[in-house]
Amino acid sequence: MIRLNNDYNKGAHPSIIEALAAHNDESYAGYGLDELSEKAAAEIKKYLGRDDADIHFLVGGTQTNYTVIASALRPYESVLSADSGHINVHETGAVEHIGHKVEALKNKDGKITAAQIREAAETFKTSTVPEHITEPKMVYISFPTEYGAVYRKDELEDISRVCREYGLYLFIDGARLGYGLAAEGGNVTLKDIARLADVFYIGGTKCGAMFGEAVVICNDELKKHFRSSIKQNGGMLAKGWLTGLQFYTLFKDGLYFEITKKAVQQAMQIKHAFADAGIPSYISSPTNQQFVLLTNEQMEKLSEKYIYEFEFRSGIDYACVRFCTSWATKDEEIDELVADILAL
Amino acid sequence: MIRLNNDYNKGAHPSIIEALAAHNDESYAGYGLDELSEKAAAEIKKYLGRDDADIHFLVGGTQTNYTVIASALRPYESVLSADSGHINVHETGAVEHIGHKVEALKNKDGKITAAQIREAAETFKTSTVPEHITEPKMVYISFPTEYGAVYRKDELEDISRVCREYGLYLFIDGARLGYGLAAEGGNVTLKDIARLADVFYIGGTKCGAMFGEAVVICNDELKKHFRSSIKQNGGMLAKGWLTGLQFYTLFKDGLYFEITKKAVQQAMQIKHAFADAGIPSYISSPTNQQFVLLTNEQMEKLSEKYIYEFEFRSGIDYACVRFCTSWATKDEEIDELVADILAL
Amino acid sequence: MIRLNNDYNKGAHPSIIEALAAHNDESYAGYGLDELSEKAAAEIKKYLGRDDADIHFLVGGTQTNYTVIASALRPYESVLSADSGHINVHETGAVEHIGHKVEALKNKDGKITAAQIREAAETFKTSTVPEHITEPKMVYISFPTEYGAVYRKDELEDISRVCREYGLYLFIDGARLGYGLAAEGGNVTLKDIARLADVFYIGGTKCGAMFGEAVVICNDELKKHFRSSIKQNGGMLAKGWLTGLQFYTLFKDGLYFEITKKAVQQAMQIKHAFADAGIPSYISSPTNQQFVLLTNEQMEKLSEKYIYEFEFRSGIDYACVRFCTSWATKDEEIDELVADILAL
Amino acid sequence: MIRLNNDYNKGAHPSIIEALAAHNDESYAGYGLDELSEKAAAEIKKYLGRDDADIHFLVGGTQTNYTVIASALRPYESVLSADSGHINVHETGAVEHIGHKVEALKNKDGKITAAQIREAAETFKTSTVPEHITEPKMVYISFPTEYGAVYRKDELEDISRVCREYGLYLFIDGARLGYGLAAEGGNVTLKDIARLADVFYIGGTKCGAMFGEAVVICNDELKKHFRSSIKQNGGMLAKGWLTGLQFYTLFKDGLYFEITKKAVQQAMQIKHAFADAGIPSYISSPTNQQFVLLTNEQMEKLSEKYIYEFEFRSGIDYACVRFCTSWATKDEEIDELVADILAL
Repeated sequence: MIRLNNDYNKGAHPSIIEALAAHNDESYAGYGLDELSEKAAAEIKKYLGRDDADIHFLVGGTQTNYTVIASALRPYESVLSADSGHINVHETGAVEHIGHKVEALKNKDGKITAAQIREAAETFKTSTVPEHITEPKMVYISFPTEYGAVYRKDELEDISRVCREYGLYLFIDGARLGYGLAAEGGNVTLKDIARLADVFYIGGTKCGAMFGEAVVICNDELKKHFRSSIKQNGGMLAKGWLTGLQFYTLFKDGLYFEITKKAVQQAMQIKHAFADAGIPSYISSPTNQQFVLLTNEQMEKLSEKYIYEFEFRSGIDYACVRFCTSWATKDEEIDELVADILAL
Repeated sequence: MIRLNNDYNKGAHPSIIEALAAHNDESYAGYGLDELSEKAAAEIKKYLGRDDADIHFLVGGTQTNYTVIASALRPYESVLSADSGHINVHETGAVEHIGHKVEALKNKDGKITAAQIREAAETFKTSTVPEHITEPKMVYISFPTEYGAVYRKDELEDISRVCREYGLYLFIDGARLGYGLAAEGGNVTLKDIARLADVFYIGGTKCGAMFGEAVVICNDELKKHFRSSIKQNGGMLAKGWLTGLQFYTLFKDGLYFEITKKAVQQAMQIKHAFADAGIPSYISSPTNQQFVLLTNEQMEKLSEKYIYEFEFRSGIDYACVRFCTSWATKDEEIDELVADILAL
Repeated sequence: MIRLNNDYNKGAHPSIIEALAAHNDESYAGYGLDELSEKAAAEIKKYLGRDDADIHFLVGGTQTNYTVIASALRPYESVLSADSGHINVHETGAVEHIGHKVEALKNKDGKITAAQIREAAETFKTSTVPEHITEPKMVYISFPTEYGAVYRKDELEDISRVCREYGLYLFIDGARLGYGLAAEGGNVTLKDIARLADVFYIGGTKCGAMFGEAVVICNDELKKHFRSSIKQNGGMLAKGWLTGLQFYTLFKDGLYFEITKKAVQQAMQIKHAFADAGIPSYISSPTNQQFVLLTNEQMEKLSEKYIYEFEFRSGIDYACVRFCTSWATKDEEIDELVADILAL
Repeated sequence: MIRLNNDYNKGAHPSIIEALAAHNDESYAGYGLDELSEKAAAEIKKYLGRDDADIHFLVGGTQTNYTVIASALRPYESVLSADSGHINVHETGAVEHIGHKVEALKNKDGKITAAQIREAAETFKTSTVPEHITEPKMVYISFPTEYGAVYRKDELEDISRVCREYGLYLFIDGARLGYGLAAEGGNVTLKDIARLADVFYIGGTKCGAMFGEAVVICNDELKKHFRSSIKQNGGMLAKGWLTGLQFYTLFKDGLYFEITKKAVQQAMQIKHAFADAGIPSYISSPTNQQFVLLTNEQMEKLSEKYIYEFEFRSGIDYACVRFCTSWATKDEEIDELVADILAL
């Protein structure tokens, strides 16, 4: 079976396995205070266009999301998110568990707009009873979104501008950042992200690493005591250098960009095959996740050789399913799938 | 100025002031373990149609809401509420602050339906990734709603039935319960509430008392250690008999029902006056809160003599405002307002 | 029976009952934004020696304690307290419930010292793993303590100095502040408290009011959004003017100081009677709480006419019990008790 | 330099690196629902003497501690721990952050006794104001303790018996469980642990794995929804099979026991060397951590070749330092250290 249901079903890029093996006999200081983590941060900074960012390595996405939010907000402050945002629908209420309300805004392809943010901020600002409602203080967006869409550079700039105007922190969930930066027709760079966000993370788990998310804190207000937050929220790996080493490997020669770009190209092949076969897409995604509407018969046929992810029933005749490429997807797997799609 | 903006702008029914004065020289055991609280509970039980309920007296509504929720739910469990529900929009995120997600359902006049609840429960039940989402375990409804509407008896019975089918606790916010029970054309009794809810409260603050909400716990599962929850959540009044005495005064001869009924009748006079004047209502409320759409000119005119509550702009020409009667509203105030409405 | 077990077993000073009755027909703005609360704050400020304090009225002590702490601290910050401190032992873990560690220091008569605070602050400051431990950021002391003892002015000044040196907020729990300021041989004034603390509260519940605690915020850093914290933590009374009116009544002519002073004088009569009868005190308290060690026989004898509070067994032959005077204690009750003690 | 400061300064046992490399091309279901995790659980169960335990794999110790506690306790319940317990002093208040009080008991070598637990339970049980205090509902002990000591089997049995008598859950932190089971002169087996604890974990991070802790839930009451707790608390690894594979590798042929036993033998060599050199130990530890009191001169000498962990100053002349062996410690490192100690 060929597993294309998600982008976290294989271990790690071979270079990472090699690196881990090569360093296994050496000993390091604990809790992320080691030279490999430092070197990884230095490599990442080369792509940021700024030297003043703080970089921390956490283990997984949910953990990273609520740790950043817990660290940034006061108890009466809330975070604005698309209603489809990962923190709003797929993290077992982790943000609420540590005390904060997620104010959900209606999404389009997983995206929200600067206008929606402005409206929410204005609603608070002009409230006659501000102490009875939570104060939006952070905006959470995913790049790419949970549906594979990406923000254009001007959209991000608009969002960032509104955030700064109203004193909101812009937090970008980059669990799939590599795939977003490689989006077909996209024009956003890591420099843009680092210029526009107050804090964001570079996903490792889904982009070549075994695990790990690199949090980049750009806004000074958010830097203080972040390590305390990591520890308190269970994200401080004893052997922090393991994450550092993985990110060092991914960034020192641009491997991160290369492998995610390849995955996006593979996804475009899938996308075009479905289009050629006359199979409708649920949304038009320029990244590694492709959501399409299949008939039961088509699902059955494809499930003989492929593991995809069932999303939801769409009417009586269709279901939305996800095909997902990753750094680990092989060209021959794509060739086979393309042929099978065209033969549907 | 005549203050009709809300139902909590005056102290307490004169009988309560008298009772407090009369008992002021006596001393009592602290923290609600006194004979007056016991007597109040006994009087309330006469109206419940069941002897097995636990009754506790708290101070205010927000406090009561999050204390009940904190006491009932495990960390990964959420509460379903109308998106317009008080816990969702007017309590500064208190429920999230103590760790729980409020799952908002689209309201109609502040109400939700049994079908919506079933759908949410089914979504969880049939989820393939239940551990990634919160589990709905409680349904929160307001009777009457924040817009003054009430559930019919059959609607409550449907909701209760679905809750029991899916193992959800039904929690009824009765901050204005008296006005809801007296709703024009309504057919719900306190007995019905006690039969259908797992836990609810009888609002005192807005219904004749200085302050105080009487929590009635019908479901045995929710009874254990509720006093610990009250204390931990800051709702345990040192001089608990003060609340007990107020509820005893309100319930021993049915005063609670009498004064809220009178307020609803007054509200109906206002409602009819607006209708007669051709002024549209925002919703058709059968209780003490009346929401109408006024022009700026009408607002200005009425604000010469009346304090009402501005809700929101509705288009360019209108604003939604609230006129609210209470146990303290005088007939001559209503007469004056009615005349002034008809003269608009 | 004469109830001397605590200082919250009677309603309120007669002037307060009168004031509540007198204002009962008037209507006010809600949630503490009324003119009575304003007037109360103005009267209190006359005693503070500073005009820049923010004053808020909450309902009870536990609620006030955790609301102040929740509002002041970031998640990784802790509060230093005597191990006997009310927040550490008698509030059902309310401070931990909203997320903060109470770091307990060994008490003497309920007091802690500047040296202990310095040591704790130094331990954090010099830690090689600061992110693995909580950062002490607030010091909580009770004045008077839970055992009735008071800090001398120089002790408070030392504590305040250490707090400022290390950037710790000094929070004084004044649930019984009136009795502390009237301590026999004491030399601390409300001006001193307002000069030395960053935030404190003036207890109403135990000092003449029905309920209510007046929080005084001196440090600008703690002022922002405190109303949001009150609301979120369930302490915002809908009819806030009820608390305002009570504090206005207590402070406009110095009634607060007068009635607590009288109670302390009565307690001193009890203290001397026990001493004259050769009955040992558990600690030598200069305030309204007297802790003495009684034999079973003495307890039995006194319990015929008096309700006192049992604290704990002390060896086989003795028990520690509390006799507590209050603003409500009558001179004839004391005369009777003194006679009965001397007759033991 | 030879790093003996802790037991988490090297990657993983070579077999684990090999296993990771060998499985790197295969794909697996996510979030711990894979066959490797299942196989790992099956191997572990062979050592438990019971089939009914639930086994879950988390990433690190702090995360595991607060997840287990958050999952087991209601808001008003607290956990009893040695004052030296890791949850009490080295986890940045993580337990309090998620809402629970840690009630600290005075430790001896990091241990607490059944008698202390009984006393705490009795204090609650006999309290006249139980709703004002937290209810102890769980006992947390570390095996071995933070100082390297171990409980004897009869001590564990006494503790377990008291816990069951009072309805307290016994939670054993086994971050170093392997070293504890191999303690010199020890007589506790994994079967004993599984028989006596309600929940415990088998530490991987410090015992041969890259990372990972295997939680074993023996008490049915604690099993329900534990996966929701893991997800909500940030401990659910997307590629859960990575942890499964590590534990499978450690348990399938008893490697876990073998490598920790060897480390304890090496620690014993260090212990005897210090004793032979007349250097006092801080406590007499039978496991892989050795705490000794060194003079400044001795510290300086040893720090030329060894990295040890400084603990605290002990008087003017001494400091307490830790030497720690692990699965990765080489015999020649120990030989060298022993020689250098004897030459001090």
